[in-house]
This record gives sequence, C-alpha cells and structure tokens, in this order.
Amino acid sequence: MKLMRLGPAGNEKPVVRVDDSHYVDVSDLTPDFDERFFGSGGMLRLKQVVAERIAAGAVHPFAGERVGAPIARPHQILCIGLNYSDHAAESGMPVPDEPILFTKSPNTLVGPDDEVRMPRGATKLDWEVELGIVIGARTSYLDSPEQAREHIAGYVVVNDVSERAFQIERGGQWAKGKSAETFNPAGPWLATPDELDDVMQLGMWLDVNGQRRQTGSTSTMIFDPWFIVHYLSQFLVLEPGDLINTGTPPGVGLGMTPPTYLQVGDVMELGIDGLGAQRQVVVAPR
Amino acid sequence: MKLMRLGPAGNEKPVVRVDDSHYVDVSDLTPDFDERFFGSGGMLRLKQVVAERIAAGAVHPFAGERVGAPIARPHQILCIGLNYSDHAAESGMPVPDEPILFTKSPNTLVGPDDEVRMPRGATKLDWEVELGIVIGARTSYLDSPEQAREHIAGYVVVNDVSERAFQIERGGQWAKGKSAETFNPAGPWLATPDELDDVMQLGMWLDVNGQRRQTGSTSTMIFDPWFIVHYLSQFLVLEPGDLINTGTPPGVGLGMTPPTYLQVGDVMELGIDGLGAQRQVVVAPR
Repeated sequence: MKLMRLGPAGNEKPVVRVDDSHYVDVSDLTPDFDERFFGSGGMLRLKQVVAERIAAGAVHPFAGERVGAPIARPHQILCIGLNYSDHAAESGMPVPDEPILFTKSPNTLVGPDDEVRMPRGATKLDWEVELGIVIGARTSYLDSPEQAREHIAGYVVVNDVSERAFQIERGGQWAKGKSAETFNPAGPWLATPDELDDVMQLGMWLDVNGQRRQTGSTSTMIFDPWFIVHYLSQFLVLEPGDLINTGTPPGVGLGMTPPTYLQVGDVMELGIDGLGAQRQVVVAPR
Repeated sequence: MKLMRLGPAGNEKPVVRVDDSHYVDVSDLTPDFDERFFGSGGMLRLKQVVAERIAAGAVHPFAGERVGAPIARPHQILCIGLNYSDHAAESGMPVPDEPILFTKSPNTLVGPDDEVRMPRGATKLDWEVELGIVIGARTSYLDSPEQAREHIAGYVVVNDVSERAFQIERGGQWAKGKSAETFNPAGPWLATPDELDDVMQLGMWLDVNGQRRQTGSTSTMIFDPWFIVHYLSQFLVLEPGDLINTGTPPGVGLGMTPPTYLQVGDVMELGIDGLGAQRQVVVAPR
C-alpha cells in the first residue's frame, strides 16, 4: 500500500494511492495516519478494506488536491547523521563507528510540495534527500535488527532541510539548525515494505534549479534501516508513527567547493525510486 | 494556580492544587493539560472557574492518589545545556556564549515520584535538578525576552536524568543519553508565574540516599527563562505545552571526584522553592 494524506494543511484526509490517477478514501476508517492508527493495528485493517474497495471500484480520481505529509505530526523525528561514507567525507567528518542521533522538532513536518521557508538570519540553508522510516509499533529493546522488520510501517522520501550556521556555528548540538518551520518535507506517500523490491537498492536524487546536486543509492548506507531501528531501541522508546530520517548521500551544499547554499526563489526537486518525488520553492522569512 | 494531574499513569485527571490537603477537580473543563488546553486560552478559563469553586467550597481532599507529571506528554522537550557556570566547570566544558540546545524524547515524561528505570547497559546514570518552563502559547520569532513573559504558562521541577556514557561516549550528540524511558520526572505541580515572588531567586536541591548532592539557586543561571524562550523562538516554533529544561546547577555525579553514578535502589529527592519536591527510586532495567 501507498498511504497519502490529501487536503489543506492541518485538515488532510487519509487515503490510499491506487495508481497515478486514483485513490481510495479511508477517512471513514481512521481520522488520520497517526500514533493511534499505527499503534492499534490500523495497517492490517486498512489492507483488507482497501482491497475490497478497489475490487468494488470504489476509487476516486486525484483532483489537484494539496498533498500533505503521509503521516500526522509524529511524537518524535529522529535523524541519523553521516550515514553515507561519501557524505561524511564531504562534511569533513570521520565515518561514525555507530549511528549518530540527532532530532528535529516534530512540527517541522510539511507536505512534499509545500514551500520551504528560510529562517530569519539564515545564511547557509541546505538540502538533504533522505530515506525516512515510519515506525509501526511501540519499539523498545529489540533483540536483533531482524526483529525491526515487524516494527517498520513503511518508507518515505524526506528532505532533511538544514541551516548549517545554526547547526554547526551556534553552540555545538545539531538540533538548532534542523528544527525551523517547514524543515521536514515528507512524502508524497508512505510505501509499505512489500511495495519495494529491495529497500537497500533505491536510487536517490536531488536537483536545485534543475541542476543535479545529489545522486546516491541506499546501497551505500553505512547502517541499514533494521540496524538503525534495533540500535535506537536500546536508547529510547520509539512510538508508532515516529519518523526516522536515515541520513543523506553526498552532494549537499556544505560539501560543494565553494560551499553553495539555497537562496529565496530556489527550487528543490528530489526523489527516491518507488517513493515518489517532491518539489519545494524556497520562500523569504516571515 | 498550581496545576496537577492525579491518577494512574496514562489516565491522570487534571486538578488545581488549593493547599497541602485539597484540590479542585477541573476534569469537566478539560480532558487534560495539553497542547489544546494551553493553546486555546485554557489557563484564563481555569482561573475564573477555580476561584468560583474554591469560594463555593467545591474542593476535594488528596487521598493518596499517584501524582503524575503536571502536563500531558508535550510536543517536544527542549533542554538547555551548561546553563550554570559552576556546572559547566565541573563538566570540564567552557561557559557557552549562547544557549546550548539539545532534546529529550517526549515519552520520557513521568510523574515526580515514579520510578526511574536504569537503561540496559547503563553504567553512568546521573541526576540533574532543573527549573522547567512550560510554554503557554505558540511561540515564534519573539521580538524581545520581555515578550516571552506572555508565552510562559508556568514553571515546574524536572529531573533531567542522564546516562553519561550514552550521552558523551557513543557518537557525539547528547540526545542519545537523555531519552530513555522514565528519564524526565516532572512535577508535582506547574506553578503559574504569579505564584512565585521571583523566579530568579529560587533555591534548588537534590539528595541521593539522603546525602545532599546539588545545592543551587536560579540566581546563578547564565541565560534566564525569558532570554531562553526568546532565543529558541528564533530557531524553531514552540508549541503550547512544550517543556524546556533550563539546565542544572553544580553537583551532578559526573562532576564528583571520582565521578559517582546511580545504582539500582538509590533514592533521588529533589526540589525547588515554591515548586515542590520529588522522590524517585532507581529500579533495574526491564
């Protein structure tokens, strides 16, 4: 299944994508794709009903509705830093021995094609195409990475937007440059694991103003999704619907010579095989 | 007003403390002290009704109910690091030029007298008595620290429980050692600002097994609560009900010679003038 949320920001309705032009409305089954939904077996219920509705022809055409993030604001957004060896190199950082954890404010979550707002005082606004993991069940102290498979609801494209001066030059912890409003576009859909032939063989790309900046593949991740979920579960409790950004491949602005950052009016386009594409325009500070 | 939540974990009811032995039940006015409550003028409505109920004698005696955290699980828990100059010194860190921001998972929030569970593999479990700020309104780009006064719902005692090996020795960002289950006892009550003569003159203390470990005062904070709220609002959006832990005074286990950490069975007692006291027993990992 490919879960989506359609409609105005803050008032999206949950649907399941059938193909490029049709969806099944499931807003009668759940008010949202949120912690309660994922934590109460919602995905299983959904699967059966959606199959029935498709068989009965109860589908709707997409009609230009805004696409929201495919999940409601999560309990937490966790991020893995420097999880591609080439990106660590371009950032001037050593390849980590174990996953680096940082966080973003959950209210950074926006739709895949929403505007990205430059924060006031920003000088080093940067892009990061990433594979996002959505957690499907309460997760604590998993015994093995293998066990993580049962705890992953699906995968999603995210843009882990960053302000590098806030992140690196303003006091030593990264959250400060990761948490501004609109800094976490996600979507267009959440793909359940069965939708992907091999989550470790997905091409990733990001363009700025039509120029290719990032080209990568999940095949070069240092720590894979199951290891990450298993690892994090040793330090904290993951709640259903939590989002984990798993790190970015090479090609961010920070790594260019000279470093090159986003300006107002710039357009980011990005995507991952099987997970769809995003497009954001950078707009001026409020 | 002093807001409290009474009852079993996950099923607390919101009340307002009248004195050591009585409270006003306000569970008919709001299901919880949560983002919706704080963000919709709930504090103003509460004030009028509570005064009426006290005048009418509609109060209840405390009857040994469990005391929960005085707020529901917040959208985010933000923490300010090294905000007391003596604590920076004992940690071997320089006094920061501007607030250091890190985060805890929101699901670390527990009641003031709940057990603190040692994480599996923990070797350096530590304590931190702190003044917590609860945000009263959506907060973004405040013009001045003075303006922050209208955005603070109140203050609360928190124990910013930390696992120092996870925090410092496992990959470079602090969140990893701050987010285990039960790591954020809060309460017993949220005091509105008018309940405190001077929030910058509050004595703070923490004992382990009856031995005084931390003695401090909010008067030695480097960045005061209004500066902190104003500052954070330049980097991210604070939501109603968000919790900010404002840093700890000297006397943590990491700063002792030799460093001394918590063991299973140890008892932490801590408090801040006007904000009440907490007591937690350290229990074995799950």
